[in-house]
Amino acid sequence: MGADGVQHLAETIERMPLVDHHVHGMLPDPSEADLLAALTQAEHPASPTDVFDSGQGFALRRHCAPLLGLETFASPADYLAARRALGSDDVARRLLQASGIAAYLVDDGHRPDRLMPDERMAQLAAAPTHRVARLETIAETVLAQSASGDEFVERLGPALEAAATEAVAFKTVAAHRCGLELDPARPTNVDVRSAADAWFADHRAHAASAPTTPHAGHAASARPRLTDPTITRHLIWWALERGAVLQVHAGFGDADLVLERANPARMQALVAATAGTGGRIAFLHCYPYVREAGWLAHVFPHVFLDVGLAVEFLGANADAVVRDALDLAPFSRVIFSTDAWGVPERVLLGARLWRDAAARVLGGYVTGHGWPVAEAVRVAEGIAWRNAEGLYGRRFVTR
Amino acid sequence: MGADGVQHLAETIERMPLVDHHVHGMLPDPSEADLLAALTQAEHPASPTDVFDSGQGFALRRHCAPLLGLETFASPADYLAARRALGSDDVARRLLQASGIAAYLVDDGHRPDRLMPDERMAQLAAAPTHRVARLETIAETVLAQSASGDEFVERLGPALEAAATEAVAFKTVAAHRCGLELDPARPTNVDVRSAADAWFADHRAHAASAPTTPHAGHAASARPRLTDPTITRHLIWWALERGAVLQVHAGFGDADLVLERANPARMQALVAATAGTGGRIAFLHCYPYVREAGWLAHVFPHVFLDVGLAVEFLGANADAVVRDALDLAPFSRVIFSTDAWGVPERVLLGARLWRDAAARVLGGYVTGHGWPVAEAVRVAEGIAWRNAEGLYGRRFVTR
Amino acid sequence: MGADGVQHLAETIERMPLVDHHVHGMLPDPSEADLLAALTQAEHPASPTDVFDSGQGFALRRHCAPLLGLETFASPADYLAARRALGSDDVARRLLQASGIAAYLVDDGHRPDRLMPDERMAQLAAAPTHRVARLETIAETVLAQSASGDEFVERLGPALEAAATEAVAFKTVAAHRCGLELDPARPTNVDVRSAADAWFADHRAHAASAPTTPHAGHAASARPRLTDPTITRHLIWWALERGAVLQVHAGFGDADLVLERANPARMQALVAATAGTGGRIAFLHCYPYVREAGWLAHVFPHVFLDVGLAVEFLGANADAVVRDALDLAPFSRVIFSTDAWGVPERVLLGARLWRDAAARVLGGYVTGHGWPVAEAVRVAEGIAWRNAEGLYGRRFVTR
Repeated sequence: MGADGVQHLAETIERMPLVDHHVHGMLPDPSEADLLAALTQAEHPASPTDVFDSGQGFALRRHCAPLLGLETFASPADYLAARRALGSDDVARRLLQASGIAAYLVDDGHRPDRLMPDERMAQLAAAPTHRVARLETIAETVLAQSASGDEFVERLGPALEAAATEAVAFKTVAAHRCGLELDPARPTNVDVRSAADAWFADHRAHAASAPTTPHAGHAASARPRLTDPTITRHLIWWALERGAVLQVHAGFGDADLVLERANPARMQALVAATAGTGGRIAFLHCYPYVREAGWLAHVFPHVFLDVGLAVEFLGANADAVVRDALDLAPFSRVIFSTDAWGVPERVLLGARLWRDAAARVLGGYVTGHGWPVAEAVRVAEGIAWRNAEGLYGRRFVTR
Repeated sequence: MGADGVQHLAETIERMPLVDHHVHGMLPDPSEADLLAALTQAEHPASPTDVFDSGQGFALRRHCAPLLGLETFASPADYLAARRALGSDDVARRLLQASGIAAYLVDDGHRPDRLMPDERMAQLAAAPTHRVARLETIAETVLAQSASGDEFVERLGPALEAAATEAVAFKTVAAHRCGLELDPARPTNVDVRSAADAWFADHRAHAASAPTTPHAGHAASARPRLTDPTITRHLIWWALERGAVLQVHAGFGDADLVLERANPARMQALVAATAGTGGRIAFLHCYPYVREAGWLAHVFPHVFLDVGLAVEFLGANADAVVRDALDLAPFSRVIFSTDAWGVPERVLLGARLWRDAAARVLGGYVTGHGWPVAEAVRVAEGIAWRNAEGLYGRRFVTR
Repeated sequence: MGADGVQHLAETIERMPLVDHHVHGMLPDPSEADLLAALTQAEHPASPTDVFDSGQGFALRRHCAPLLGLETFASPADYLAARRALGSDDVARRLLQASGIAAYLVDDGHRPDRLMPDERMAQLAAAPTHRVARLETIAETVLAQSASGDEFVERLGPALEAAATEAVAFKTVAAHRCGLELDPARPTNVDVRSAADAWFADHRAHAASAPTTPHAGHAASARPRLTDPTITRHLIWWALERGAVLQVHAGFGDADLVLERANPARMQALVAATAGTGGRIAFLHCYPYVREAGWLAHVFPHVFLDVGLAVEFLGANADAVVRDALDLAPFSRVIFSTDAWGVPERVLLGARLWRDAAARVLGGYVTGHGWPVAEAVRVAEGIAWRNAEGLYGRRFVTR
């Protein structure tokens, strides 16, 4: 059974549809600078070498190059030339479709102005997209349209309800803003109004001092930015009490977050307090705190996790996080994602590296730990798409 | 020498007696609900799937099923049916005796009212039990019998001394109560009396408001619960200055503890302060902070550690913690345990998975790192039982 | 290509020159007690067993024993006897030269009074040494020569400049003193003067109460010790604004540091604030926070890391840290070191274990992840010496 079974497992994982439960949109026609920027969490990579000579860069040269008609491990220069020659749409079509992802849950909260419409991405990928609504973006949009903190509070509820009708889940980037160590108590209406007043006043003061001419660039300081923990907690409680799925960025990302404050364990008190709401929490990425997230999934029935982003960036060492995610978490709470943003290379790599790592890790559990192949397939299928269908209560995969 | 040596090592580890230096008592006749509850650290598992579709659940189906006369990887339903058919005592006899554990050090501090007497467990296991006395339980019992904080302080010393005559070690669950980041200073008598007064008053206030009828269930609020860090530090200092071994819960457990506050590294200042007392500290479990505990064992001559609980729950990935525990800790400071509670499956799995992981990890060090087989055997034997005999200053294994 | 390629990779790594970018000096004629003390981070090992029965101890018996003419895995007693018979100089010559280290960057900040001159070490090693200047030592020396806080501030700048002319890099042990969670702001001159006054006054008070007779031992309390975070930040900012490389001790070491406060992630705010200075930061050791350091290298173009110290102490499990260091860090930011102190065994083991671990880890990436052998060689060569030459802007290796 050993070698044959492992071979069968690998082939089955290879053909398995994937539901990418957390991804972002694609840039319509990325320049080389765009590509490099999209391939790193650094704001400014020191050099193309930083990007290409890395776990992810080597994986890109190995797996993406052949899909563009090059030899495996083509040089960065050849890769960039092939990309230009084919054009962005063709590259996107090739890479997205080769990923075998059958459905995308798209969070468009990160620089949505630069990204193609979801419909276009769905077309290029030949797979449907679904909306994940970012709580902070909703709140920020409402604040920008409000003339007072009170008006913000009045408008916020309907805006959230409107988003809920279109979205399959909500997302919070509290990790980037106030950190995950949030007071567990549901804020009172008085707390929320007071925090809204303060945010509104603060934003008005900033906007007044920001450039107002249309040519002043993206005028970042004129857009409200939610960092207030009370409003953040209000949004989180609102989503969970509604019975929704709340995706929570955890672990690494760009330098905009403080790494230790993005540890999912920091959110333990709030997770415990919301266990009875009917809502579910999905911790995203988690690296290097995968084991901590697995423990939360073990002790709290409403907690899920994925290791998207980490799998893709780690490249050859992706096995480590795929393995650690199964340490304590019930297998039904582990879910595939890529967390790709901007360029289809990241989608392809997230899928490709997960399939390979899952085949190796679960294959090792078959040969070394007596797991029946059928059980290993069942675990893989759960992570690939079935657990996502259970969590979101929808059919994403046609069958 | 390669393959033969590794085979010999595995066979030697297989036959080795084990001293389980930290375990709990067994439920006399567990229902299926009891079994499920005992197999998880979650207060309420979402479903049997949470328990069976997990690293531990797969290991249970692999290793326990054959001992109940089933095929390996029998279904959960078949497993539960076989368990019912055999009866609790027979199941306990089979699993406990198959573990090869030659002696148990039993902490009965977790729900002792529900557990069988130690004598009965010893009979079913065909192996002697020894007492580990939980410091918090002693203090709580004394408080419940005292009419004032002063009386508590008067009675506490004799109660501790009485426990010491029967116990081979003490245990603290400070991680579940006030966290491990404790002020290192030995509390003064004045500090202790003042903390005792406050605890007594607080408990009296709670007990007055709690249900008092005999049918009001376990009336948890009427039992004192020690969370005060000053009294906790007093107990820890008392045990260590007496030259005793103090077991310290560290790392994961149920959601009653705050994970980050259970990091053994948080206790560094108190560990340093007690280095000269003659007492020894054994950090239990430690996951995911095994490497931190190993460093403490490296730099402090009175620190030991085990990876009980983690080995059992991780199942196929148990190698990771067995390996990490040997990173920095002197090999003589690493000790086997299961931390099983309530059901014999956990005892069997703790032993079974440790033997397999130790054989793989140390076998890899023989083939890949030139360790002589005899040295690998010596390291395994130390962890299995010899280091425990050294630490506790007793013969546990008949020879 | 598989087996042949891996063989070629291993042979190439074996012959590769190494630049040890962080090491300390050697004891001129270590006693057995000196040897044991130098082989552990514990202030007082409980016994020789603590040292020899450990990951590092087993590696020593495996790799150092044959270089002293013994069988592999000779007993500790035989090893010590052979060491005595050969004499310190011969042992040092054998072990240092067998390491294949082509250049040493020496931090003499740890007990320099006990160590041989660099010239002697260079002679025994047959390899040049370069100076790494420890910022705290410079400041402490200046304070000891100053009659006031003001004089300290006046003298500090010239003393730092003088050190800079001789040193290839600076080093800080902030992790051992005030911890790495430092306020990111550059301290003002007023802040520095005020902190200098306080330090001077504090030192004067201590020195007055310390023994003054020449026979009073090392009179530790009479030597100033910098723990003030403001002066520490001043030194760090000074070095980085000068465009220098600043080595930062991170992760484990002796018990003099608080482990959690040595997490490189704690320094994130200061790292971010200094990104534009032109200076570079090299986090040393990092264990068990290697992944955190890798993330900092990923998001900040001026951050480098090594896993010296950890590789040597972990012995058979060194692969884990070699692998984790490549998770997120661009490959060009990972640099070899030993962090050896006092005895040549640590130099040999740091080099030997790194070569073996790199050959296994990168060999696995060749066979399991399709890395071309030439690319694996390039990555290894970068870590071995080329990245250090790039970082320090010097030729260290003759070619």
